[in-house]
Amino acid sequence: MSKYVYTFGAGQAEGSADMRNLLGGKGANLAEMAGIGMPVPAGFTITTEVCTYFNAHDRGYPESLDGEMAAAISSTEATMGRKFGNVDDPLLMSVRSGARISMPGMMETVLNIGLTSSTLPGLIKRSGNERFVWDCYRRLITMYSDVVMEKAAGIETTEDNGIRIQLDGMLDQVKERNGYEYDYQLTSADLKSLTNAYKVRIKEVLGSEFPDDPMEQLWGAIGAVFASWDGKRAVSYRRIEGIPGEWGTAVNVQSMVFGNLGESSATGVAFTRNPATGENTFFGEWLPNAQGEDVVAGTRTPNPLNEPSRNEGNDLPSLESFNATLYKELVGYRDKLEEHYTDMQDLEFTIEGDTLYMLQTRAGKRNGISALKMASDMHKEGLIDKHTAIMRVKPGQLDELLHPMLDPVEEMKHTPLAKGLPAGPGGATGKIVLTPDKAEEEAKKGEKVILVRTETSPEDVHGMHAAEAILTSRGGMTSHAALVARGWGKCCIVGCAAIEINMSAGEVRVNGKVLKEGDVITLNGTKGLVYEGEMPLISVDPGKNEDLKHFLEWCDETRRLGVRANADSPNDATQARQLGAAGIGLTRTEHMFFEPERIKFVRRMILADNLDDRRAAIMKLLPFQKEDFRGILQAMEGDPVTIRLLDPPLHEFVPHEAAQQKELAREMGISAEQIKSRVEALSEFNPMLGHRGCRLGISYPEITEMQARAILEAAAELVKEGVDARPEIMVPLVGHVKELSNQRAIIEQAYEDVKANIGEIPHLLIGTMIEVPRGALTADEVAEVADFFSFGTNDLTQMACGFSRDDSGSFLPHYVETGIYGDDPFQSIDQTGVGELVRIAIEKGRQTKPNIKLGVCGEHGGDPDSIHFFHKVGLDYVSCSPFRVPVARLAAAQATLED
Amino acid sequence: MSKYVYTFGAGQAEGSADMRNLLGGKGANLAEMAGIGMPVPAGFTITTEVCTYFNAHDRGYPESLDGEMAAAISSTEATMGRKFGNVDDPLLMSVRSGARISMPGMMETVLNIGLTSSTLPGLIKRSGNERFVWDCYRRLITMYSDVVMEKAAGIETTEDNGIRIQLDGMLDQVKERNGYEYDYQLTSADLKSLTNAYKVRIKEVLGSEFPDDPMEQLWGAIGAVFASWDGKRAVSYRRIEGIPGEWGTAVNVQSMVFGNLGESSATGVAFTRNPATGENTFFGEWLPNAQGEDVVAGTRTPNPLNEPSRNEGNDLPSLESFNATLYKELVGYRDKLEEHYTDMQDLEFTIEGDTLYMLQTRAGKRNGISALKMASDMHKEGLIDKHTAIMRVKPGQLDELLHPMLDPVEEMKHTPLAKGLPAGPGGATGKIVLTPDKAEEEAKKGEKVILVRTETSPEDVHGMHAAEAILTSRGGMTSHAALVARGWGKCCIVGCAAIEINMSAGEVRVNGKVLKEGDVITLNGTKGLVYEGEMPLISVDPGKNEDLKHFLEWCDETRRLGVRANADSPNDATQARQLGAAGIGLTRTEHMFFEPERIKFVRRMILADNLDDRRAAIMKLLPFQKEDFRGILQAMEGDPVTIRLLDPPLHEFVPHEAAQQKELAREMGISAEQIKSRVEALSEFNPMLGHRGCRLGISYPEITEMQARAILEAAAELVKEGVDARPEIMVPLVGHVKELSNQRAIIEQAYEDVKANIGEIPHLLIGTMIEVPRGALTADEVAEVADFFSFGTNDLTQMACGFSRDDSGSFLPHYVETGIYGDDPFQSIDQTGVGELVRIAIEKGRQTKPNIKLGVCGEHGGDPDSIHFFHKVGLDYVSCSPFRVPVARLAAAQATLED
Repeated sequence: MSKYVYTFGAGQAEGSADMRNLLGGKGANLAEMAGIGMPVPAGFTITTEVCTYFNAHDRGYPESLDGEMAAAISSTEATMGRKFGNVDDPLLMSVRSGARISMPGMMETVLNIGLTSSTLPGLIKRSGNERFVWDCYRRLITMYSDVVMEKAAGIETTEDNGIRIQLDGMLDQVKERNGYEYDYQLTSADLKSLTNAYKVRIKEVLGSEFPDDPMEQLWGAIGAVFASWDGKRAVSYRRIEGIPGEWGTAVNVQSMVFGNLGESSATGVAFTRNPATGENTFFGEWLPNAQGEDVVAGTRTPNPLNEPSRNEGNDLPSLESFNATLYKELVGYRDKLEEHYTDMQDLEFTIEGDTLYMLQTRAGKRNGISALKMASDMHKEGLIDKHTAIMRVKPGQLDELLHPMLDPVEEMKHTPLAKGLPAGPGGATGKIVLTPDKAEEEAKKGEKVILVRTETSPEDVHGMHAAEAILTSRGGMTSHAALVARGWGKCCIVGCAAIEINMSAGEVRVNGKVLKEGDVITLNGTKGLVYEGEMPLISVDPGKNEDLKHFLEWCDETRRLGVRANADSPNDATQARQLGAAGIGLTRTEHMFFEPERIKFVRRMILADNLDDRRAAIMKLLPFQKEDFRGILQAMEGDPVTIRLLDPPLHEFVPHEAAQQKELAREMGISAEQIKSRVEALSEFNPMLGHRGCRLGISYPEITEMQARAILEAAAELVKEGVDARPEIMVPLVGHVKELSNQRAIIEQAYEDVKANIGEIPHLLIGTMIEVPRGALTADEVAEVADFFSFGTNDLTQMACGFSRDDSGSFLPHYVETGIYGDDPFQSIDQTGVGELVRIAIEKGRQTKPNIKLGVCGEHGGDPDSIHFFHKVGLDYVSCSPFRVPVARLAAAQATLED
Repeated sequence: MSKYVYTFGAGQAEGSADMRNLLGGKGANLAEMAGIGMPVPAGFTITTEVCTYFNAHDRGYPESLDGEMAAAISSTEATMGRKFGNVDDPLLMSVRSGARISMPGMMETVLNIGLTSSTLPGLIKRSGNERFVWDCYRRLITMYSDVVMEKAAGIETTEDNGIRIQLDGMLDQVKERNGYEYDYQLTSADLKSLTNAYKVRIKEVLGSEFPDDPMEQLWGAIGAVFASWDGKRAVSYRRIEGIPGEWGTAVNVQSMVFGNLGESSATGVAFTRNPATGENTFFGEWLPNAQGEDVVAGTRTPNPLNEPSRNEGNDLPSLESFNATLYKELVGYRDKLEEHYTDMQDLEFTIEGDTLYMLQTRAGKRNGISALKMASDMHKEGLIDKHTAIMRVKPGQLDELLHPMLDPVEEMKHTPLAKGLPAGPGGATGKIVLTPDKAEEEAKKGEKVILVRTETSPEDVHGMHAAEAILTSRGGMTSHAALVARGWGKCCIVGCAAIEINMSAGEVRVNGKVLKEGDVITLNGTKGLVYEGEMPLISVDPGKNEDLKHFLEWCDETRRLGVRANADSPNDATQARQLGAAGIGLTRTEHMFFEPERIKFVRRMILADNLDDRRAAIMKLLPFQKEDFRGILQAMEGDPVTIRLLDPPLHEFVPHEAAQQKELAREMGISAEQIKSRVEALSEFNPMLGHRGCRLGISYPEITEMQARAILEAAAELVKEGVDARPEIMVPLVGHVKELSNQRAIIEQAYEDVKANIGEIPHLLIGTMIEVPRGALTADEVAEVADFFSFGTNDLTQMACGFSRDDSGSFLPHYVETGIYGDDPFQSIDQTGVGELVRIAIEKGRQTKPNIKLGVCGEHGGDPDSIHFFHKVGLDYVSCSPFRVPVARLAAAQATLED
């Protein structure tokens, strides 16, 4: 026969923390605390099995429950030294739900159970506080009639006719009549007559009497909690979160204790270490004569727990000075809890008279800085091993150590103006500028500016670089602004649709508010929030943080996945290496084409109408490209550098405005008309699916030849000079093996020449991006001519899901809100769909070539969830923006540990 | 020990037609003919195994070959009654290649082997024709020095210094010197001195003498043929065609016979039935005193074989009258060959003196009309069974019976102006018009016009309808013009890049030629060819063709795949049913939105800025839509009609020109500025991957609701009236199961209402298109809420391959030319890549729902190769344009038979 009821209290418990499935999270934790000798108010947990039984048997209970309950109540009474329903010194009970995982607000709670016409006087006598008791009674009646009685009556209510609304209305009337502003102004007499009126109204509306029997109240509350598991709110929450209905909830019945029983009573919350800094000092707040919610509500200024917890200007007595004995007892529990849970705990306590009760403990929330410090310290203290320490920091929390952040305390005081997509983490504050030129100009004067644009293009790059941060009204997580900002580790918010820019007026309208160019705004790029005005930033120098250095070393020892960075310049490469990248996973060559002295040759190449002119223009670019590659290969000496051949459609390189076209025409000695018509011919309906990637290199083999030569000559020269250059030439957008073999033949031909004229490159690979679904589906064929695959999960997502990142703003946010997609698939890889293509490509690729090198260079390479996925499916490495490298190192280590 | 040499001749043969792998196609056929008693000039075949040996052993031969050859030569000599190398009456030989499958022109041939200084006089004596013999000798020397000697000498030649070029140059000099225009003017003496000069030049250039020994000539020629298997041309041809190098070629050594030996000799070609009409009459042409190539070359007007073969105006004697005995013999062989091969044969014969020789037989080429007639007749005659008859007609040939075609004889006389993509089969001739309005205007006057446009849009539809044919300079096989034209069975050529339209000048430039509006052109839409001027068309009324009717019935009995049609109107549906469609696989609802009285409501809906206005505008469309659906459902009574909910991006419906925007603004009572800004907001970077398909129905559920109601009300009313309406509601562009469940819920809600208010629809399905790769990859999930899948292989191809059909014109033709893709994947499904998605979706879909209905409604549904694929992977049906339905019925039957 199953055991249905588990008691806890007085340093003993029938349950424990590992019985979460049976006792729910709350019940298991109460049992654990009691079990290790903490003074938890005694009580008992009715198991989740009873819930399952209850809902399967038309709200009936197992036969043996009655007896088990009676025994548990007796045991609780014995521990607390009071009796439930006793008229002289009644024990009151709370009834709370507690599922396997927390479902905040989804189920019911009833407090103060056991107050009846006969027990009221006893509690008044014991507490010496009549008003307090009547107020408890009022609360009991309100909660009980709402949670238990109305539901049991099966009355359909709307938002404004429920019993609770009616009772609250009566309360308001009393306050109005008496000219009170606050609830605490109600007198004992007010409350007494109010509770009487409540009972009458309940009888009228719900057709039954408020029960005046403690046991009837108790069973009613228990049944209501079990029934709430299948309530509308809970069912829909479970559906969204994917929680099985079979789990059920447990019910926790616990003795009530009162921190508001008089001036010697108190209540407080504390953290076993400082949750803001991570320092190993006991930290907390308390209030005399108060209940838990008063501390949290913030209506009264709380007292400091001890001197280290004291804020400047707060002179209120500490708990240490208020009651040294109980404070010492509390410190003992703090030590014991940390030792027991080996983690920082967030705990609640209540002092009723001269007794200290521990009401709750749970792992304490923390920011990134404190998470890292605590994990490092606890490892030094011998409390946890390295692997546990690694699991204690969330990858995203490292952002706080890598970028300046808004001061969270300050941020809490402000209401955001608008919300966009968090494209580049960190905080920034500065004056609004609307053009890149203005941004550069102001930055030169030493002004901090934020560039606000509808969207950005490669021509804005100088202004983006000069700005503290970038804010756009359009675009997604992989838009131009987002990619560039992340590459630089710059704060950036994109797709902030609430922003309307009026260039001619020099204004930005945000939800009805008008901001002028020059007005100061503040961005929280980690959350995508835009604020008006200035706010202080806090920052840590990651280079000087020894904890971070060691922590990431532990990650490196642990992880299986390699971590590379995406970098397009020697500077970026150097920075990537400093941040721990073991190679470059993606060098985009097109950025190099935009430099002013180069773009003219690019344009001549594109506008040439014969092979000779085209070839001549292209070959002019060779020395530039070669210099670029030399720099990156040198910076990454000994590590591989994956260089992608030209990818974007040629249309992106040509001038679109008449003035520019005219100028180019003059330079080239042809008519502007010719240029215009060529530019028009290059425009495409769907450039994403157009003439780009390796399709360019197949149409214009001379482009591939020039780029291959530039890479190979740079590498061969370096090797000759004794530098261990390791180029990996990557052909983009391959959907068919024959595309790759076509391009590979050109590269190999170039290598034959370079080998003969300069020398060999011992570490040279030629491979492809897998970013077209067909490439993934035929990876067995593609692998025959590829030394490596690098998954381009941005494009793969666009093509597999059939939405363009630039256009999805019109429906994707709605998709994510309504749960069609759990996450934005451009932020975190869609494991089911896009991931299936990755799995297929890996399986087929390895089938042909078991040792083929496999990596990912899409933006997903820096996303922790995606990194877990890439670990699981067996990639060799991920590659991401330099500033994401530490995040990726941590996520990769966690993936290994969770494996 | 292997047998290496197989003899044939005199009604006997060691080989047969089924020994193609060993003897090659030519050798096996010669053996077969000889074996059934035909007078084939005797000879022998050296097997493909010798080729393999030869190339594996540094051009050496198996030991036993010498002896086998000697025996075969003796046997040939005995049969022919002459001896190889005999000085009095020499036997001459030809040496020809013959691989397992035909590789035309890829390998070598040498004729007249055996002519030497000592055998020349004997042949002169026997033939009594000295010039003939010297000409044979000249040809031998030319071929042999080129094919055998130059290659053996290993001399690298360019296009203009090879030995053949040099010898031909000498011939030209002699002609010039003598003032001859034609070769036949060369005298015996000219040829004699020329051959002497040839030999001197050969010695000079190639360093060796032209061999004067018959056996040396023979071995030289055999070796050259075997060596040519690994020659550059053959190797590259094999690579393209995927022919394994191990196959090797056989060598056929055969006695020479001469139709040009005198006035009693003759040569001819014949078809066992009329290849143009299919009629069962012996049909052919012959020439007295001529060789085979003279008949084919067309330089002399050939004589008719018999009276039925005689063309009007040709008075030349028939073979029947020329030599009644041999004609009778030939008729006997004709009967025997048809009976033996049970198919129409294309045969060659030669009469040397009084002996008839059969030189070749093979299945005769035929057009669509004759293919059908012969298959039908032969079945009636008991020659072949139904299944064989079905295999005898190529699916594409049915087009000739369904559309007017250019007269092929007439077409041969013209050179095309330009070539484009064959988007709509058939022929058309008419005046050029450049605007749809002009097309309509001219057509009303009774003029036949061809609409020539850069590309077409939905606004051109009235003009497209009025025109005989459509010609565009841009767009692919699934562009708007192609889709619409095919739907109507109209001749159409798209992507004809050579065409430049100058609207203001009212001109079309084609490869330097200028055509004016009003000039007549002719299109061959089956081949994509554009001609200047008018040409006659021929056509057959398919409705009156009983053969076709029965033939398609045999197909229907045979095939497993169902065939439906894509149709957007009751007229199209009726036509589709007449052409044999068992249901509609795709009704596009957006076409219905473009009607002038509707488009204004569509636009109001799109431009509404609140739900109420939007809903009001949408609901105005309901009666129209309902009427459309009633018509189609009624026309297809008893068969399913798949109706796709709104698919294209809303941007396609709004006015883009200022004038139209202004007018709409006036109508709607809002500012033109507002309309302009909304239109701009709707524009997308990649509309193909944008806000369309079910994404619209999710953003604007009221659109789905209106369409669902229109379909369901129409169907329910029909059912109530006793019409068996079977709607299948199809949700487009589903990539995620939750998209479908979202839309399905709306449709089901509408059905609940319709059921309550009108009545049930016993046959109602709700399903989805599988056209997004993610939808295919997660088909197991999607199948949970889909009653059917219809593969939208157009979009699936675009997304899987990553190229937009509208933009691929810039690289895809080059891809197909260079063999990166074997076929245009928009014409014939890419079985490896896109097909893999189809296979995955079928497997996963059936895993969840074994009886899920599976079809295809992309353009591939009408392509025979694709239909074979769809049969193989197990779809339930294909759906195509009404005019492709007969083609699909045949292709489906053939797929079943080949299975």
